[in-house]
Amino acid sequence: MMKKFINNPEDLVNDLLHGFALAHADKVRLAGENLVVRATPKSPDKVALVTLGGSGHEPALSGYVGDGLLDISVPGEIFAAPGPPRLLEALRMANRPAGVLLIVLNHAGDIMSANMAMQMAKKEGLKVRQILTSDDVSTGPRDKPEERRGLVGCLAVIKVAGAAAEQGRSLDECWEVAHRLERNMATLAVAVSPATHPCTGDAISEIPEGDMIIGMGQHGESGSGQMKIKTARETAEIMLDALLKDLSIKAGEDVLLMINGVGSTTLMEQYIILNSCKKILDQKKINLARCLAGEFLTVQEMGGFQMFLARLDPELTALWDAPCKCPCLAR
Amino acid sequence: MMKKFINNPEDLVNDLLHGFALAHADKVRLAGENLVVRATPKSPDKVALVTLGGSGHEPALSGYVGDGLLDISVPGEIFAAPGPPRLLEALRMANRPAGVLLIVLNHAGDIMSANMAMQMAKKEGLKVRQILTSDDVSTGPRDKPEERRGLVGCLAVIKVAGAAAEQGRSLDECWEVAHRLERNMATLAVAVSPATHPCTGDAISEIPEGDMIIGMGQHGESGSGQMKIKTARETAEIMLDALLKDLSIKAGEDVLLMINGVGSTTLMEQYIILNSCKKILDQKKINLARCLAGEFLTVQEMGGFQMFLARLDPELTALWDAPCKCPCLAR
Repeated sequence: MMKKFINNPEDLVNDLLHGFALAHADKVRLAGENLVVRATPKSPDKVALVTLGGSGHEPALSGYVGDGLLDISVPGEIFAAPGPPRLLEALRMANRPAGVLLIVLNHAGDIMSANMAMQMAKKEGLKVRQILTSDDVSTGPRDKPEERRGLVGCLAVIKVAGAAAEQGRSLDECWEVAHRLERNMATLAVAVSPATHPCTGDAISEIPEGDMIIGMGQHGESGSGQMKIKTARETAEIMLDALLKDLSIKAGEDVLLMINGVGSTTLMEQYIILNSCKKILDQKKINLARCLAGEFLTVQEMGGFQMFLARLDPELTALWDAPCKCPCLAR
Repeated sequence: MMKKFINNPEDLVNDLLHGFALAHADKVRLAGENLVVRATPKSPDKVALVTLGGSGHEPALSGYVGDGLLDISVPGEIFAAPGPPRLLEALRMANRPAGVLLIVLNHAGDIMSANMAMQMAKKEGLKVRQILTSDDVSTGPRDKPEERRGLVGCLAVIKVAGAAAEQGRSLDECWEVAHRLERNMATLAVAVSPATHPCTGDAISEIPEGDMIIGMGQHGESGSGQMKIKTARETAEIMLDALLKDLSIKAGEDVLLMINGVGSTTLMEQYIILNSCKKILDQKKINLARCLAGEFLTVQEMGGFQMFLARLDPELTALWDAPCKCPCLAR
């Protein structure tokens, strides 16, 4: 028997979105067909940021609608991209002289919806540019971003592009900073216990007793790094080394590190892992310029976390530091 | 085999506090013997707020050190109150002409430490008043607060007292608003799956397959309401009815409702429960004036949540709405 507090599975996303809008009524509201928009939209002089993605990953992505971040989030069903018509509705709603930046995580369903909606939007003369986030180092090499899945790195891209937009920068300038961060970021996930699909009650993956799986995706996609569960320090070493190598980070460089708990792994553990990472980076004389820990993009009650690393430059650091106000990111 | 990312269990709290301070270096720092203090302390004209409590409940309580909230948090070992000497150290550090408000959750260990530290503080001439939070309706009747455990209600007390202190109110005035909210709040917990003690690897409670237990405490203390797991709506009804009855809330009154996920119960479910509560309150013509959902006080990876309800008046509402800035509460 599934141990989740839900009502009718068919109403699940609708129920959760209404509860979400209720909890954050000062910051967001629902518009159109369950699009999440800012409670107080900004003037059309500002580039608008739009994203899409399956539900079941709360607080991602609707939790980042707000000042200095997203203008519209288009939530799909559980673990499923929204269809092109709802995304097109969002692009029409967001369209403005300054233009719209569409942020898409690299997953087949999201890309299909995004590409179809972009085609229709262009026919209608909407001013939209798209950026794809593909940060999962476990699914493909750095020079083949099309093979890399989109993980929690999308949040960092939303943060810097959102700050640039809030400053009144042009669509091309917003795209440029988003692209620069995207090309300088990498994520690796680890799972220790499975998630249950809240509509079917089925486990979305299997993880043998006592094992952890490095590289498991945020929908239970298999990962190649199956091994006995290790200490926080050992796990941090394995994962951080892979990210540093992928990004060719050298001593003296500034990095942003995010530990993203995906469900039942506690904030306590996330802080311990962060502390272990700091010691490793200190030894390598790499500067941990910014860091955070928390549940930013979850996978139901899955145990594990995603480790995100990015190379910072002064401009990206300033955009990361810029104020923002949204339901689910304390600043 | 325990599936938690930790290092040496003996260093666990130290490791987590250092990671916590690292993640929130702009807002908090560690001082003395692992006391959590504001990175930028406020002038001694302001009443200082101090609290204590066992670790393992992150983000509680150190996550609420910051502007408009706590000045000092004294974290203990996992699920264990800190000893009187460290609390006394905090009271000395906080002591000032405006005075210190000590917020204590009603648990035997916390009370013993608080009473001993208060005795010593008074001998030293420190200006301290204490407020006890005892919000668990499942452990005793309303007229016997000494039997009621302290649950997540402490956060609301910290919020209103912290706002009053930030406005420059006197120690007695801060105590008064804290006391008024405390006497008008109630919490009920439900658990669906157990937590593991991160140092010993042992489950801290047993919950039969398919069952939920209403009234289970935040250290696995037994609860009397064992039953088959119900839908979000049915669970909300049972729990909300108990809270409304305890507080004698009537149609037309304003309430604050908080859904506090304690671990592996997802934010998705918390929003669904909140939405169910809204429908129930609407039917009863009770005004859901303020609400929130999230993980504010956790119990490791336990599944379940705490439902908190308080009667609001205009002054308490304004204090609840006052700005604050801390590591773990997005506003």
